Amino acid sequence: MEHLSTLIKNQVKDWSLDQKFYKDEEIFNLEIENIYMNSWLLAGHESQIPNTGDYFLFNLLSESVIIIRGKDGIVRGFMNVCRHRGSRICQEKSGHAKRLTCPYHSWTYNLDGSLMIAKYLKDDINRDDLGLHRCQLETIEGLIMINFSDNPRSLRKMREELTEPMQMFGMKDLKIAEHRNYFMEANWKLGVENYNECYHCAPAHPEYAKSHSLKFDENSEEYQSAQKTMMETLTKCGMKDYEISADYVDQIASQEQYAYGRYALFDGYITGSEDGKALAPLIGEITEYNPGASDFCLGPVSFLLAYSDHVIAYVFTPVTHQTSQCDVYWMVDKDAKEDKDYDLEHLIWLWDVTTKADERIIVNNQKGVNSRKYTSGPFSEKESTEKRFISWYLDQLRETL
Amino acid sequence: MEHLSTLIKNQVKDWSLDQKFYKDEEIFNLEIENIYMNSWLLAGHESQIPNTGDYFLFNLLSESVIIIRGKDGIVRGFMNVCRHRGSRICQEKSGHAKRLTCPYHSWTYNLDGSLMIAKYLKDDINRDDLGLHRCQLETIEGLIMINFSDNPRSLRKMREELTEPMQMFGMKDLKIAEHRNYFMEANWKLGVENYNECYHCAPAHPEYAKSHSLKFDENSEEYQSAQKTMMETLTKCGMKDYEISADYVDQIASQEQYAYGRYALFDGYITGSEDGKALAPLIGEITEYNPGASDFCLGPVSFLLAYSDHVIAYVFTPVTHQTSQCDVYWMVDKDAKEDKDYDLEHLIWLWDVTTKADERIIVNNQKGVNSRKYTSGPFSEKESTEKRFISWYLDQLRETL
Amino acid sequence: MEHLSTLIKNQVKDWSLDQKFYKDEEIFNLEIENIYMNSWLLAGHESQIPNTGDYFLFNLLSESVIIIRGKDGIVRGFMNVCRHRGSRICQEKSGHAKRLTCPYHSWTYNLDGSLMIAKYLKDDINRDDLGLHRCQLETIEGLIMINFSDNPRSLRKMREELTEPMQMFGMKDLKIAEHRNYFMEANWKLGVENYNECYHCAPAHPEYAKSHSLKFDENSEEYQSAQKTMMETLTKCGMKDYEISADYVDQIASQEQYAYGRYALFDGYITGSEDGKALAPLIGEITEYNPGASDFCLGPVSFLLAYSDHVIAYVFTPVTHQTSQCDVYWMVDKDAKEDKDYDLEHLIWLWDVTTKADERIIVNNQKGVNSRKYTSGPFSEKESTEKRFISWYLDQLRETL
Repeated sequence: MEHLSTLIKNQVKDWSLDQKFYKDEEIFNLEIENIYMNSWLLAGHESQIPNTGDYFLFNLLSESVIIIRGKDGIVRGFMNVCRHRGSRICQEKSGHAKRLTCPYHSWTYNLDGSLMIAKYLKDDINRDDLGLHRCQLETIEGLIMINFSDNPRSLRKMREELTEPMQMFGMKDLKIAEHRNYFMEANWKLGVENYNECYHCAPAHPEYAKSHSLKFDENSEEYQSAQKTMMETLTKCGMKDYEISADYVDQIASQEQYAYGRYALFDGYITGSEDGKALAPLIGEITEYNPGASDFCLGPVSFLLAYSDHVIAYVFTPVTHQTSQCDVYWMVDKDAKEDKDYDLEHLIWLWDVTTKADERIIVNNQKGVNSRKYTSGPFSEKESTEKRFISWYLDQLRETL
Repeated sequence: MEHLSTLIKNQVKDWSLDQKFYKDEEIFNLEIENIYMNSWLLAGHESQIPNTGDYFLFNLLSESVIIIRGKDGIVRGFMNVCRHRGSRICQEKSGHAKRLTCPYHSWTYNLDGSLMIAKYLKDDINRDDLGLHRCQLETIEGLIMINFSDNPRSLRKMREELTEPMQMFGMKDLKIAEHRNYFMEANWKLGVENYNECYHCAPAHPEYAKSHSLKFDENSEEYQSAQKTMMETLTKCGMKDYEISADYVDQIASQEQYAYGRYALFDGYITGSEDGKALAPLIGEITEYNPGASDFCLGPVSFLLAYSDHVIAYVFTPVTHQTSQCDVYWMVDKDAKEDKDYDLEHLIWLWDVTTKADERIIVNNQKGVNSRKYTSGPFSEKESTEKRFISWYLDQLRETL
Repeated sequence: MEHLSTLIKNQVKDWSLDQKFYKDEEIFNLEIENIYMNSWLLAGHESQIPNTGDYFLFNLLSESVIIIRGKDGIVRGFMNVCRHRGSRICQEKSGHAKRLTCPYHSWTYNLDGSLMIAKYLKDDINRDDLGLHRCQLETIEGLIMINFSDNPRSLRKMREELTEPMQMFGMKDLKIAEHRNYFMEANWKLGVENYNECYHCAPAHPEYAKSHSLKFDENSEEYQSAQKTMMETLTKCGMKDYEISADYVDQIASQEQYAYGRYALFDGYITGSEDGKALAPLIGEITEYNPGASDFCLGPVSFLLAYSDHVIAYVFTPVTHQTSQCDVYWMVDKDAKEDKDYDLEHLIWLWDVTTKADERIIVNNQKGVNSRKYTSGPFSEKESTEKRFISWYLDQLRETL
């Protein structure tokens, strides 16, 4: 692809991407193969499938993965594709199965994926070769990560560095209180770019901007002052300070990318709630409400936002070259009871209203980018992570040349 | 197309097709030109248009054919395309016309297709050259077959060999009691493959499997025993035994393909009904209910299933490369009266419920086949006609190279 | 594009276009770039935005133009694309704005398009280069014409020749009483061709044919006689006779095309109404109802039809290669009051019913043209403007080679 190398070469550093990156189907196909089929994606949480035979599906583009707990208690990923004629085996989004039976011709698989029953099959066919195709799957502190590559980057460093911060928030002992899917008529990158900058927070998210100091520039007095107050109470709240940055251009070779950071809430807010008050019981090792929010990055398109009493997960995935979706999960302590310990409507309020606003913004962005007269524009100084994402993204495409 | 020859060469014999055959639009276009635009298709029954000027439309992809009975009583096919600016002439699915008048500029054609009126046309334009384009059409025992090719394969052998079995079921004297269209989000071949194998009958079609011996392997004792019982009463019922196989890989050169065979119903079933009892008056030369079902193949994608009292026709056609449809016709004796001689709901029950189940199965099959991880799988020994279809299909594509 | 030159060469003069011109996406893309992005299009009327800061959007394909009146009273066109990250700035179809603020990151522009506010932008970025992209815009007698080209053909000759006829109908002092959008599943050319011939009027538009003499051939006695009667009263009605033809093949080099002509209504009709009676107060310089209708052509796809008391505007635009739309505006004197001076239902009756009929005809035409068996057909002698449109169209494509 001659064009692509020229296109990449012509990109001005720290200016927004050329239109083609948001519009061209060939580039989209490259992105799928080199980014989505080659990165670790957050697929869910172990608490969704506590018992042997419990499963749920993770669907992405043409792919469907059965994520199921085996007889040995281990969670595995299998491609939802029968080895006979290719039929999908599981249809329901989640369920429980003693074994996996294809509804078409009843080929049946054990929970470890091996072929158990296939009638009328000639004797010279080796059934050992006909087990379900595997999908790479690892769990970190209860979080289920999958990867479609047969030779994925390692999660070793992410596990090494993020385990402690994750334990601080008791990730292993969370449960999903709510899961919503937001569909956007926009290229997936516009979603990820939007997530990675807070330049738009003040103009576009009044609900968020009211309580989160990130609406200010990180060098501003307002930001620094709020940050100082929050940090001072950290230890008292049973928390520790980490600053981890191995994402995007700082990704470590052959390792999946990751990051961690924490910023303050304004005075009067102890969590991401409308009234500033607690939304749910404290989680993990936290002993007292701390007025801050922690950002986790888990691979290029999966993120966590952790408050003292709940964690929100964001996963951005493409649908077509000009449509995408965002899956949002709200997680609380596994023992918290709805209505008694938390009110679902209050819990989801901030990030539901904010994601809906982002949906409008992003769709609007795509419409403008599609214009023949759209030209690349300069990133502001408050879009630094987005710049790093764009640089990393261009590197991924460069590798395909 | 370099790829295609490699793709065909890499196909393992008696294993399912590579994903590309179900997903690639270029291959789909080849299929349309070499199979659908070059094969005889069952379009309907003469009883639909008993009088001069009666017509109905047969629509396939971008094509629309006016099938109309002329003043000489002969049924003809004309492309539904005005020779002036190309407008469709007939809009209604069926109707009656003294002549064919285009609704746009009133160009008018005789029932033999010749141009009759075209106002303001310059004198040097030869009107004799501006008759409606013809579509090849032949009738066999009342069944209307059409072919979009100008140089189609011959129907001579089909007519020679199938006329007797068709007369046995009185095909000429049937009428269409019901016509339903089933839409499937799946490539047309998955529909034809499904129709051509009964490996899935036991797991997927309990209603059918209860009464039709084909759910068993043809070499099984159960099948053979039922077959023997059925065959013994054949003559007594006014029927004869035929075994005709000139379909798919057994197709005779330059002739359209065809086949005929008969298999038994289980004890207690005299036709394809829910309770085993008769659904309609006996048809054709049949003098007594015989517990069997006869399969006719009329070209690659049109099929009949004939019981003692009714005949079902199946026609599979593509819509796009990943969507298709199946037209199902239920036919009974032309003199049978609804409600008096047959109950429509009972008549259609079995093949309506079965086609709906197939629709689910086929759509599910396409979804799985679309996965990057789908790989070709081995056909079982109970998928022999499907294997023959696949071999024939690959031959058709090979011819395009 | 080798194919295209062959395709153009093979076109028989005065026969309808080959199927590819209505079906091929590559040809469609050429049309967009060479015709729609390079022609003057009627976008609206000044009366829609009387005050400083009033705006409305003109949307075409991926493009959106903000048409806004500045502080100096001048109407300008700006691309609705933020210079930061490309977001659309205005969302509402019309409105009022003191300045233009992007909803994403609050970049703010003055009404002359210059960048006013952009927070956190590095000092070395030149803000003078970051004003909104302009869209060419000119007004003629209140009619707003836009052009996406940076180097458009001149409107000088059109202005020179059409100003007088436009003043006769008081174009400057009209207002839009109604605007409707008609969507058609057909290539845009089928819409423009349909508008440019009245061969179909008698068969397809009984409402129009009842009162408009154009249903007859221009050389016919019926047409000539009605024309004579109408012309005799022209001066008495305060009108003048013009015959202007600089459209399609008669286009003047480097000038946008235009034309003007007038034809008679039948006895008993003084305007395009159902009962022949007046629909609204007289417009412009007209002093008495004159039984005729005047056709204006303003560029290749925008048309006016002017009666003594109202003017209808037609603008044909593409949506995809096989879908398009027609925007129809009904205009009356700016001082006419609805319900008192005109009844909206009566005003729009004729051209609403006629456009709906055309929509059916055109969609039907596209369906037939899509058939493999469609072949080009001969234009009649009553399709002369359409012939000239087709010749001009082929010239435009030839220029791309």
